[in-house]
Amino acid sequence: MTINDVAQAADVSRQTVSNVVNAPEKVAPTTLDRVRREIDRLGFRPSRAAKNLKQERAGAWGIELNSHGFGRLGAVLDTFLVELTTQSRRHDSYVVPFTATDGNHPIPAYEDLVASRIADGFVLTDTRRDDPRPQWLQERSIPYAAFGRIWDDPTITTWVDVDGAAGVAAAVHHLGEQGFERIGWLGWPEGSPVGDDRRSGWARATEELGLANPAWVGQSEQRLELAAPTAATLIDRIGRGGAIVCASDALALGAWQVLLERGFRLGADFGLVGFDDTDISSAIGLTTLRQPLAAVADSVLRMLGTGSATEAASPAGILLPPELVIRASSTPAGDRTTTERGTL
Amino acid sequence: MTINDVAQAADVSRQTVSNVVNAPEKVAPTTLDRVRREIDRLGFRPSRAAKNLKQERAGAWGIELNSHGFGRLGAVLDTFLVELTTQSRRHDSYVVPFTATDGNHPIPAYEDLVASRIADGFVLTDTRRDDPRPQWLQERSIPYAAFGRIWDDPTITTWVDVDGAAGVAAAVHHLGEQGFERIGWLGWPEGSPVGDDRRSGWARATEELGLANPAWVGQSEQRLELAAPTAATLIDRIGRGGAIVCASDALALGAWQVLLERGFRLGADFGLVGFDDTDISSAIGLTTLRQPLAAVADSVLRMLGTGSATEAASPAGILLPPELVIRASSTPAGDRTTTERGTL
Repeated sequence: MTINDVAQAADVSRQTVSNVVNAPEKVAPTTLDRVRREIDRLGFRPSRAAKNLKQERAGAWGIELNSHGFGRLGAVLDTFLVELTTQSRRHDSYVVPFTATDGNHPIPAYEDLVASRIADGFVLTDTRRDDPRPQWLQERSIPYAAFGRIWDDPTITTWVDVDGAAGVAAAVHHLGEQGFERIGWLGWPEGSPVGDDRRSGWARATEELGLANPAWVGQSEQRLELAAPTAATLIDRIGRGGAIVCASDALALGAWQVLLERGFRLGADFGLVGFDDTDISSAIGLTTLRQPLAAVADSVLRMLGTGSATEAASPAGILLPPELVIRASSTPAGDRTTTERGTL
Repeated sequence: MTINDVAQAADVSRQTVSNVVNAPEKVAPTTLDRVRREIDRLGFRPSRAAKNLKQERAGAWGIELNSHGFGRLGAVLDTFLVELTTQSRRHDSYVVPFTATDGNHPIPAYEDLVASRIADGFVLTDTRRDDPRPQWLQERSIPYAAFGRIWDDPTITTWVDVDGAAGVAAAVHHLGEQGFERIGWLGWPEGSPVGDDRRSGWARATEELGLANPAWVGQSEQRLELAAPTAATLIDRIGRGGAIVCASDALALGAWQVLLERGFRLGADFGLVGFDDTDISSAIGLTTLRQPLAAVADSVLRMLGTGSATEAASPAGILLPPELVIRASSTPAGDRTTTERGTL
């Protein structure tokens, strides 16, 4: 079914059919009605390529995958991409993933998508210090919105991020309500913006509860063979009946291994909370903080919809709180009505 | 920089510039040279939308995300999508992800992408029995290639899959070489095509080694609270010094929990092998089978490149063996030169 069929059936020119689709304000109302009836009757769908050419838009947002070079998205960006893909249709757009040949110099890949008119703008993820992308896009007035704070420039507000500090504080308060009075923190070495933010939530909430103890802090890289010995020292210092909040599910897995080796029952003898709701947490029944990725995708798409990034879409970036997913690892009484056991 | 600038600079019509880009055989050689020089000098890049409109191709392959409804891709499809995205550029194509409103009735979503000319064809994943997609695409001569066997129709050969049986057999032989003589199988309940295929590799290899024992089989759903008790029974039956190959890393995590509770050292006192190289396996030092996802993506793109799915791209589907990733859990001597400890 082509534009010619519609033109013939409605007894108008191809240009008129094109106007009905792309510039209906140029068409007389009676003609508009007649052509639209034929479009419906014949089931004609205008070529998106033709429509976008007229509108000078690609109808798609580019999203760089694998910008950290791990060869996979990981649990958080995986879910974010599914949400973004699903929700973009409501905004009459598609999402076009791409990778950069050299992850340390991503700009040529962005340039290529813009020059070839594959994408009208971009969703940035994995924002970091000394990130060349925001400035490059800003200078060219290319629309973009970021999942993650723009760390280098506080005047840029087209970002959505998750309030890690608020999430960790909520986890500490939850452990307090469950009767835990010795609550430690197992985090990454200082200096990572995300890790420092999460730790600040632990410091604030233990202070609020009058349970602050700077000795109950352990720091480890994200590797189990490093996390487990650090967790062991921390668990032995805190003792049975205590609890630990971790900066990630991977660190919590290190603590879980130690608890099993000590013969501590998870939840009943020791409380444990992770972060990110990865497969690990649902597998071992770990209470964790789930990033609100559907809401992040929605906010990112709204920001992109408001137009160029140089016109500030909002007076400040958007911080969304994560959701505390309560499972057995933080509920000593084993109150199953409030716990969830997941499946991989 | 538009087509008009090039036309003016080269003193030719817009149509001639368009022909240089889209149909160079129509242009006289001297004109072709002159216009191409101006295209290079001015840095003009033809609009992809315009080019695709001429060529009547979208230049993109659609890929349905979340067809199982979990809201995330999971470790295997996550890595596959990154590979497919990276490699599609070599084939002058993009990948356009989409989701179906109703995962049980995905055809309208496929229809929409074809009708709107967003995608020229599709990469199918999560193939399953009673899958309506292959037949629908076949009837319309829409190109497609699948990651996963087309279970319903053996005459369809445009698929690439991973030879799970061969992978598990390789794991059993590896355990045999490491001195394990009692090697069990922890799998899913019978009836899943993928699970049954993997189990057949265990049955074949233990037979080959003269180590077959039908009592050393456990079956569990993919949930830790079910996998752990099943693994406990199996581990107690096999005893210290034995080993288990699992149909997934998630099942192996259940066995790992039991080994920790029993005080068995991983690898030294009991061998363990998983499947899929998820975050879990790199976190706990688990030997596992890694699907060759770069090669799968390459084969899928080659199949799509050969044209319509109705002209068989190959006489049979392509089965690729997974790679055995050896870590501490299967090497009792702790030979660190051959093991790998991952990071999350």
